[in-house]
Amino acid sequence: MFKKILIANRGEIALRVIRTCREIGIKTVAVYSTADAESLHVRFADEAVCIGPALSSESYLKMSAILAAAEITNADAIHPGYGFLSENAKFSKLCEEHNIKFIGASADMISKMGDKASARATMKAAGVPTIPGSEGLLETFEEAKKLANEMGYPVMLKATAGGGGKGMRAVWKKEDLKENWDAARQEAFACFGNDGMYLEKLIEEPHHIEIQIIGDSLGNACHLSERDCSIQRRHQKLTEESPSPFMTPSLRKKMGDAAVKAAEYIKYEGAGTIEFLVDKHRNFYFMEMNTRIQVEHPITEQVIDYDLIYEQIKVAAGIPISGKNYLPKLYSIECRINAEDPYKDFRPSPGKITTLHIPGGHGIRVDTHVYAGYIIPSNYDSMIAKLITTAQTREVAISKMRRALDEFVIEGVKTTIPFHRQLMDDPDYIAGNYTTKFMEDFELKPEEN
Amino acid sequence: MFKKILIANRGEIALRVIRTCREIGIKTVAVYSTADAESLHVRFADEAVCIGPALSSESYLKMSAILAAAEITNADAIHPGYGFLSENAKFSKLCEEHNIKFIGASADMISKMGDKASARATMKAAGVPTIPGSEGLLETFEEAKKLANEMGYPVMLKATAGGGGKGMRAVWKKEDLKENWDAARQEAFACFGNDGMYLEKLIEEPHHIEIQIIGDSLGNACHLSERDCSIQRRHQKLTEESPSPFMTPSLRKKMGDAAVKAAEYIKYEGAGTIEFLVDKHRNFYFMEMNTRIQVEHPITEQVIDYDLIYEQIKVAAGIPISGKNYLPKLYSIECRINAEDPYKDFRPSPGKITTLHIPGGHGIRVDTHVYAGYIIPSNYDSMIAKLITTAQTREVAISKMRRALDEFVIEGVKTTIPFHRQLMDDPDYIAGNYTTKFMEDFELKPEEN
Repeated sequence: MFKKILIANRGEIALRVIRTCREIGIKTVAVYSTADAESLHVRFADEAVCIGPALSSESYLKMSAILAAAEITNADAIHPGYGFLSENAKFSKLCEEHNIKFIGASADMISKMGDKASARATMKAAGVPTIPGSEGLLETFEEAKKLANEMGYPVMLKATAGGGGKGMRAVWKKEDLKENWDAARQEAFACFGNDGMYLEKLIEEPHHIEIQIIGDSLGNACHLSERDCSIQRRHQKLTEESPSPFMTPSLRKKMGDAAVKAAEYIKYEGAGTIEFLVDKHRNFYFMEMNTRIQVEHPITEQVIDYDLIYEQIKVAAGIPISGKNYLPKLYSIECRINAEDPYKDFRPSPGKITTLHIPGGHGIRVDTHVYAGYIIPSNYDSMIAKLITTAQTREVAISKMRRALDEFVIEGVKTTIPFHRQLMDDPDYIAGNYTTKFMEDFELKPEEN
Repeated sequence: MFKKILIANRGEIALRVIRTCREIGIKTVAVYSTADAESLHVRFADEAVCIGPALSSESYLKMSAILAAAEITNADAIHPGYGFLSENAKFSKLCEEHNIKFIGASADMISKMGDKASARATMKAAGVPTIPGSEGLLETFEEAKKLANEMGYPVMLKATAGGGGKGMRAVWKKEDLKENWDAARQEAFACFGNDGMYLEKLIEEPHHIEIQIIGDSLGNACHLSERDCSIQRRHQKLTEESPSPFMTPSLRKKMGDAAVKAAEYIKYEGAGTIEFLVDKHRNFYFMEMNTRIQVEHPITEQVIDYDLIYEQIKVAAGIPISGKNYLPKLYSIECRINAEDPYKDFRPSPGKITTLHIPGGHGIRVDTHVYAGYIIPSNYDSMIAKLITTAQTREVAISKMRRALDEFVIEGVKTTIPFHRQLMDDPDYIAGNYTTKFMEDFELKPEEN
């Protein structure tokens, strides 16, 4: 087992990893930018190394600084968390070259799954259903037009390097294809320096349902059931739940089997997530694979009594998994509490937290790195807490969330709490009747006084 | 179902009841003394009524003030929490007379179980093993001496009105009986105005193991497995866990069956706890019954996924229980965080909490009513938080507790956190090798700097 793990991240996920390491007796090294000197991940780690200024490219993304910190402190493994370097093939490779275990996917795996076209081709080869569409990149507009006509509209144009909705266009009729093709390519080039495009059948009434998997060095994999992440705004997840209200036992078996088959086919090692789109007829299609821990992993932990970070570490240390799949025994919901103003287009609201009261009690879990007096830097993502409720039924998990949101007091900055409060009272949400389009029609009511 | 519940209590248990009420859509009324005006139970209740000054006898024990508050606010039920009026037969009766449902035991039940001699006689009649000893009160010293000789030493002298160790004496040989008899009677009379004594066989290497039961208005009862509360200091519980490390499946079945039989024999309605002493041979003996919710109820909730307060409310509203017994699926430990100085004989340390950081994350539950800036009054009990960890194994629950205790920051007052930290590192505690005598030999090491 590792003796010391460096956590190449910040915020709640850095603290999350430190917590498990403390519980299992592994020493930890925090790295931090000057903007994060007062962060809890710095305080709770056994050692902490400043790796640069606030700007991510000069600190949390600076591979040389992080590797130097690992070498200075004699860390034998690096946990990258999510974001930053967690899906950076070069960094994974560099860790290997420096004889430091990267607790994540290999460089090859990251490359293979990070490119959407190659991920799709791999999944298709593994027998996992993929969204009908172009095989690989489209060379010309004529090719796109021909394929769209064959598949029938609506279709989606997608940039191969895309993410966060950039370089992505829904096209509902053939007259609109040209205009969207040009716009998406331009946007993709501007954002990613790569205007490679592909085309897919547009999935109607889509549900974003992902399967958590874990694989070991012996080539075995198992799944840990699903998370429903359909409540998204501009492809940013806001609230997740497990199990999915749209799930059925037979669909879970089919999706779980497909995910395990895929993981074993690619010999996936570590924790990963296979994201699927599920249409209104419960057909499911591979969307993408995340080769890292995800923000929403706690809801899986809650419903199966499991510590995903511990399992990641064990697998990285060469310990085989048990191999059995896990089915949800409870219901769990996560609300991402972001320092954003939901009344102003979810604009980030950095600044000092003047008053803080965190909810507690039965069925409540909070993962957060903030405290009263903490100053939220403007340099990083705006998530400041994950509020997670767990109960025997979905109805009670929602009631607990409502109660916990009412108790949550954060003063000094705007947060997404008012949004979540209203979501928990939304009849369609309560009925479990929602798709990835939900937020397009959601209107935030004025705040009560 | 009730429309509005008044909580005749304060602190964490008042908040605990409010939380469940909010989750199930029942309005709440807090009552508070002037010392508690800034308490969270006041803030989070739908309504709050000041019932008097800091002194308990003039506020939280003042039945007329509480009943008046219930009538003014139209509360149709009263939850008494623990302590204060929770086991007061007169108050239960008064609630009934005022047509307000007392969420607890009937006056008759409280009287029957509150008097130790009558409780013991009842349990014996129900077929529950009791500690060999006098049948009812001892009239004379001669009677005590004769019985002690018959049973053989060691024996325990106990005041029938006793509690918290008062009026209780262990006697190891017959020469010491007279002296202890006189002293215990005097103490009992001084403390309780009642010098009625009884005698019991002293149990060697005793474990305090209690069975949580719940009964309904149809006369059905079930058990929710056990809690081990052997870690006590002067009969005050410090740390509890479920399941008990001393338990075996067959003993659990026997104790559980006995507890259910007892509850059904007395037609017990509501949540209650039957406390047993278990000797080194795993013989178990009825000790006493608590006809109320207990401080340590969360560990039971954690290991069986259950909301005991909700079940109390349902049963009080006449809803039948499912009738099945619950077996522990997980391991849970509770540390009582008291504002006491463990280095000064656990002397209370009231005052202002200047800095507060509450641990969070995977497997952590905190039930607390305090916040940064909160002033702990000197008038009430000194428990300020319950820190509860839950895991798949006892070992991990202990590791989580160690980690969470390290994260817990409370500045401004002394707390029992240093004691719990050392307890979690104690080899006998870790081995699950402890009895109610554990604290007699426990030596607190100097604090690390």
